[in-house]
Amino acid sequence: MEQRERLAALRAEMKQQGVDIYLIPTADFHNSEYVGEYFKVRRYITGFTGSAGTAVVTADQAGLWTDGRYFIQAAAELEGSGFELYRMGVEGVPTIGEFIGQNLPQHGVLGFDGRTVDAAQADKLRAVVEKKQGTLSVTEDLAGKIWTERPPMSCTRTWILKEEYSGESAASKIGRIREAMREAGAGYHLISSLCDNAWILNLRADDISHVPVFLSFLLIGEADVRLYIQEEAVDDEVRAYLGNCGVEIRPYGEIYGALAELPAGTALLADKKQVSCRAISSLQPGVTVIDRENPSERMKAVKNPTELANTRRAHQKDGVAMTKFMYWLKTNVGRIPMTEYTAQEMLDGLRAEQEHFLDLSFGDICAFGPNAAMMHYSADPETAAQILPEGMLLVDSGGHYLEGTTDITRTFVLGPVTPQMKLHYTTVVRCNMALANLKFLYGCAGTSLDVICRAPLWEMGIDYRCGTGHGVGHILNVHEGPNGFRYRIVPERKDSGVLEPGMITTDEPGVYLEGEYGIRTENELICVEDEKNEYGQFLRFENITYCPIDLDGIDPELMTQKEKKQLNEYHKRVYETVSPFLTEEEREWLKIYTREV
Amino acid sequence: MEQRERLAALRAEMKQQGVDIYLIPTADFHNSEYVGEYFKVRRYITGFTGSAGTAVVTADQAGLWTDGRYFIQAAAELEGSGFELYRMGVEGVPTIGEFIGQNLPQHGVLGFDGRTVDAAQADKLRAVVEKKQGTLSVTEDLAGKIWTERPPMSCTRTWILKEEYSGESAASKIGRIREAMREAGAGYHLISSLCDNAWILNLRADDISHVPVFLSFLLIGEADVRLYIQEEAVDDEVRAYLGNCGVEIRPYGEIYGALAELPAGTALLADKKQVSCRAISSLQPGVTVIDRENPSERMKAVKNPTELANTRRAHQKDGVAMTKFMYWLKTNVGRIPMTEYTAQEMLDGLRAEQEHFLDLSFGDICAFGPNAAMMHYSADPETAAQILPEGMLLVDSGGHYLEGTTDITRTFVLGPVTPQMKLHYTTVVRCNMALANLKFLYGCAGTSLDVICRAPLWEMGIDYRCGTGHGVGHILNVHEGPNGFRYRIVPERKDSGVLEPGMITTDEPGVYLEGEYGIRTENELICVEDEKNEYGQFLRFENITYCPIDLDGIDPELMTQKEKKQLNEYHKRVYETVSPFLTEEEREWLKIYTREV
Repeated sequence: MEQRERLAALRAEMKQQGVDIYLIPTADFHNSEYVGEYFKVRRYITGFTGSAGTAVVTADQAGLWTDGRYFIQAAAELEGSGFELYRMGVEGVPTIGEFIGQNLPQHGVLGFDGRTVDAAQADKLRAVVEKKQGTLSVTEDLAGKIWTERPPMSCTRTWILKEEYSGESAASKIGRIREAMREAGAGYHLISSLCDNAWILNLRADDISHVPVFLSFLLIGEADVRLYIQEEAVDDEVRAYLGNCGVEIRPYGEIYGALAELPAGTALLADKKQVSCRAISSLQPGVTVIDRENPSERMKAVKNPTELANTRRAHQKDGVAMTKFMYWLKTNVGRIPMTEYTAQEMLDGLRAEQEHFLDLSFGDICAFGPNAAMMHYSADPETAAQILPEGMLLVDSGGHYLEGTTDITRTFVLGPVTPQMKLHYTTVVRCNMALANLKFLYGCAGTSLDVICRAPLWEMGIDYRCGTGHGVGHILNVHEGPNGFRYRIVPERKDSGVLEPGMITTDEPGVYLEGEYGIRTENELICVEDEKNEYGQFLRFENITYCPIDLDGIDPELMTQKEKKQLNEYHKRVYETVSPFLTEEEREWLKIYTREV
Repeated sequence: MEQRERLAALRAEMKQQGVDIYLIPTADFHNSEYVGEYFKVRRYITGFTGSAGTAVVTADQAGLWTDGRYFIQAAAELEGSGFELYRMGVEGVPTIGEFIGQNLPQHGVLGFDGRTVDAAQADKLRAVVEKKQGTLSVTEDLAGKIWTERPPMSCTRTWILKEEYSGESAASKIGRIREAMREAGAGYHLISSLCDNAWILNLRADDISHVPVFLSFLLIGEADVRLYIQEEAVDDEVRAYLGNCGVEIRPYGEIYGALAELPAGTALLADKKQVSCRAISSLQPGVTVIDRENPSERMKAVKNPTELANTRRAHQKDGVAMTKFMYWLKTNVGRIPMTEYTAQEMLDGLRAEQEHFLDLSFGDICAFGPNAAMMHYSADPETAAQILPEGMLLVDSGGHYLEGTTDITRTFVLGPVTPQMKLHYTTVVRCNMALANLKFLYGCAGTSLDVICRAPLWEMGIDYRCGTGHGVGHILNVHEGPNGFRYRIVPERKDSGVLEPGMITTDEPGVYLEGEYGIRTENELICVEDEKNEYGQFLRFENITYCPIDLDGIDPELMTQKEKKQLNEYHKRVYETVSPFLTEEEREWLKIYTREV
């Protein structure tokens, strides 16, 4: 079906079902950030390929809401689709709730697949609809119905992450969760978050591209643990392992029935921002929902000493791959042909050579020139731009290793750059280092610290329109809460939690000039303890990302003495960490690219 | 009665009434920050004279909870009182709720005067008590009962603040509030906040020392406005004025009866963090409470152009008084005898000489040497320290003028200072200027910006244990929400609102070393618009406080070029603003103290 026919087909379905407005989020049944192919209904309907966005369709309007990362890309991809772009957070742009409020007729019907909308969001939509004396219709996957040749649901084999990598047994984690359940007064706890389930059980798989999880629900009781999972995902070894952990295996689709069977009087701990409205609506009236964050969310964000030590090793290997790539790129650009696509293949190959490499942690962003202004650009083999010895190349990439997960961005200078480019490049590095070198008191959330990173760009009247950083999972989703850096609290992002020692967060300011260029420098920071005195516990960050920041983009005249010292110290550590794993030629080159400014 | 006898008398009353734990906040019936003499029950019982603190008494324990501003002072004043100091926010110190939870016996009774505890706080206490199957007793003022020679309730004459000073008529303000009530779906709105009532009605009085308000409740309906106020507070002129505004006058004590008479089905807008639990418990069961911030809270914080223009004039006058004081102090110290008390009398006199001076905006803090380590020290004529030509003098003071309210702190160097003092002094000034010169995007609350001010001190492992700044009322409480600077959200402080152009906030970092010295530099900042571009509306601050920052404490070697330029620009503006109103001698001196570094 052509793009516009899909929209027409959906509208025909809506008409038949008596639905006035239909909403299609980017979601699976687990509120995952990235979703498997089976769940990419919103992409099918709109043609927009970005990882975040919600489509809303009425009889005569169709809108796609997405955030600042995707404004440029979405505008291009929606061209001719019949969908209008709604830029979230921009002044004058209605929110989805406001749009529905304005367009739903009196006594109208708002529809969506109740398995793909979290219960908290559904409550908000219900409130909007009730103002029009309208109703919700949440049992039909209308957009999925018209999807011919829909791919099957993923079902990959789970494997056990040994304790030498996880640092804590599943039994111990379940024990800690039961303690939190007791404190909350809960008899059962429903966990639909795939990353939480993988972390709790020390299992990984490959059901979502670059996110090594498996479709599942966990239902933890005081005495039993039930895992709802596709049968083929579990081989005999894992089955035996789960048996030893006291975990019963149940079919994936039976979770709604199981929830319906919880006896009245049960207190169920369930995060309504995570579990679907369908899960909650399955409960009997006498079941109470204790609506709070999954205890495992914070537990898994605070990495244990084993995870931290392993993650540092993963970053050393990742730094070697990145540095080799930088050497290859900077010495070969203009001499041999290369495109964004072949360059990222080269980088992927260098990562794959590293011991214990498992997968990329997300699809590479390898963007040359103006393409880098699109924060989440993805190069296509056919249309990828030639990389020429001019301007800049932005590369945002990362890997999953058995030891841990990485996420790094470097912007490489490939030819002469203008003074404005140098100003922007240097300022982005100053922003990055200001945050990385901050000492702060325990009690701060990323919302309190974010301005330290943004201030130098704000002074110039520039903003990067997205968070400064996100938590990083341990061989899980590269984006993880509850930590993050963002200057406003966005409750549904769940990234404004108090920073705890052991949390890992990225630090990735940037400048994006549409049609011109994009610059981003991203390192990962472990939150660690500093001094404790009469004022409290001070914290700071340990920078664990090792790859030169391209000095060809830096104008030292724009930096204070303190900033130059910070950059020099960083580059010294990069050289010490990475150089033992390089060839003689690469090492000589690295000396120059980690020189003092 | 001696201090310890009071505690014994209270315990006797508690025993008679069957109360196991009795709680005494620092509060009137309006949740005012400062209270009139009649309401100073907590001071009477504990002997602690600070403006903030809560006493909790059991049969065998007595505790006083206060915050970081008062740790040093409270420890001294509680000596021998029978009360133990609980330092709020310090690790390991139980909160009041935790203390009650630990000490209330099963089926025990927690008592307090329900008029002096806000409804939100009462809900929390009820939850603690219910865990012990206990009950609340909230109708008796036990501590007041034993207070022999209790002063009468304040009752001063109200006066009209003309529109040339207020910038908006009471009728217009009531109209805007009614619009907010309609949006909230409220038929009535109870306002117990004295500052809100004074702002709405453009009336002022003198019922709380340095806070020009009058004891009152406002009940605004769709068609009527009722003011509950002491009869003697209203003369014929004000009575006629209120009549013209459509405001009916009712006796102060009748508010609870009036609330009880609201018919079932009424939706009452009332901020449960502001109104007392007695007010809420007066309502009939069929009355719904719409619990949200008073619309007037944000309205009064966003100063209108008339208020802003007037406030700038007030600060010019205040700067003249402060600069004359600084000249007098720095040229006379060591030559003529002076104490903290006589020095502040000198300053008060200089303020009183200014046209349209009304009152001090709070009791002066004039603290020499180690006394300045107590953030809210108050000099007593008998015990005030001699001011000698050594160390530093911290002066935190302000005035109410017909044009507006000021709040300024300067720390004056009076003799040789150590390198450490200079380091701390210079760093405090750097912190102050970093915030004052910040450019930021609309959407930030003070919680997002606070770290900009703290970072240079945190880098040294120092914190000032209090907010960086507070909103400032317009001839009202010098402390006002919803704006403020604080790195954590403290819901009951109500000071983490998004910053809007027109809000005025103080910027007052400091260093306080117990037994050694205290340093604070405080200016007031108006939030104003900067450029608006594709990234959004940028904001910045206009610094409206004019008085030299004592260069004798500054080591320019510790400042960046940018910081030196900021200080020089500030001092240039101080000279331009203040010098026309000085004597020839003072002007020559000011030239030196506003010189470039």
